[in-house]
Amino acid sequence: MSSVTCQISMSLDGFVAGPYQSLENPIGEGGMRLHQWAFATEIWREQHGGRGGERNADADVVDEVTRDVGAYIMGRKMFGGGDGPWDESWRGWWGEDPPYHTPVFVLTHHPRESLPMQGGTTFMFVTDGIESALEQARAAAGDTHVSIAGGASAVQQYFAAGLLDELYIHIVPVILGAGERLLENVGDPTLEPVNVVASPAVTHVKYRAVR
Amino acid sequence: MSSVTCQISMSLDGFVAGPYQSLENPIGEGGMRLHQWAFATEIWREQHGGRGGERNADADVVDEVTRDVGAYIMGRKMFGGGDGPWDESWRGWWGEDPPYHTPVFVLTHHPRESLPMQGGTTFMFVTDGIESALEQARAAAGDTHVSIAGGASAVQQYFAAGLLDELYIHIVPVILGAGERLLENVGDPTLEPVNVVASPAVTHVKYRAVR
Repeated sequence: MSSVTCQISMSLDGFVAGPYQSLENPIGEGGMRLHQWAFATEIWREQHGGRGGERNADADVVDEVTRDVGAYIMGRKMFGGGDGPWDESWRGWWGEDPPYHTPVFVLTHHPRESLPMQGGTTFMFVTDGIESALEQARAAAGDTHVSIAGGASAVQQYFAAGLLDELYIHIVPVILGAGERLLENVGDPTLEPVNVVASPAVTHVKYRAVR
Repeated sequence: MSSVTCQISMSLDGFVAGPYQSLENPIGEGGMRLHQWAFATEIWREQHGGRGGERNADADVVDEVTRDVGAYIMGRKMFGGGDGPWDESWRGWWGEDPPYHTPVFVLTHHPRESLPMQGGTTFMFVTDGIESALEQARAAAGDTHVSIAGGASAVQQYFAAGLLDELYIHIVPVILGAGERLLENVGDPTLEPVNVVASPAVTHVKYRAVR
């Protein structure tokens, strides 16, 4: 059965991006420290055109969360390119072969033609809200899962609307002290931890949202 | 080797107490939800004069964190009784036989005579700062551990001063939305997850502070 999922790295004090986010430093000061555990794995490097890396519990988690995803949804800020009407020369942060390999629905207030990339990724720009984006993503994903890629605001909106089935948080033992929090403006959902993977680098906890 | 430890229940959004704390509701609105996992265990109930309860992974954690502790340190607000000079009729929240059974050093600005209770608990009131309290607690604990009992401010002070060896966080799948945060004003310590216990109710992660 197809689920709506999200997997995201969070500091122990609750941040998914550091302070002082900018076009040059989109995940803020110290934000990259949240992702070192993934960068260190062989599978992440392969998915991003690199080599080497570890095969370990963290790598198994990367494998799990990127498998059976048939469509992604992301916020405009995560796709990047600044605010307001589109500068169409902006084609995302990820180069010509982004690591998604599926349709990616970008939440935006500004219309733009679909943007097919190499490797099966197509960015589709949705201007009529999160429910429309989810409907389109579900249709694209079929029997596979829809993953809310980020950032915090997109996750919060789906979570608060009761549209998220599963939230897989990678709890990174880093204290950022400031930045963008994940679990704000989400109401009081009932969550059950359904799987935990512990590594020396990070604690991965998968929560199921109970309706 | 004796360690300085802390074990504390934290909501997934980082709070150790809910909003609107008062003398009537010392851990704030919703704050009791952070402790249900412990209340459900047989060992917690035994320690607090109750009966029944579960023997499960959570119970093993309660057993672990209460074993081999030779002294506790707590903030004034956790001991309770309001601000300012002491009303000596206040003898803590826990009745005549508190669940500590060791010396408990209470951080305060207002001197008070030591308060021996039943069952081996003696509350000692320390007015000359956190380092003095720790020195006295270490002397009392000998080869056993010193545990910082809470609340958030006391934990933060020991953590920020580099005096905490181990922080065992019980991550409760509850979103409080407001209240008192644990991991504020603690700087940027290096933490290593050294043990994880997963239960259906809570994820217990023990972090070692690396110096």
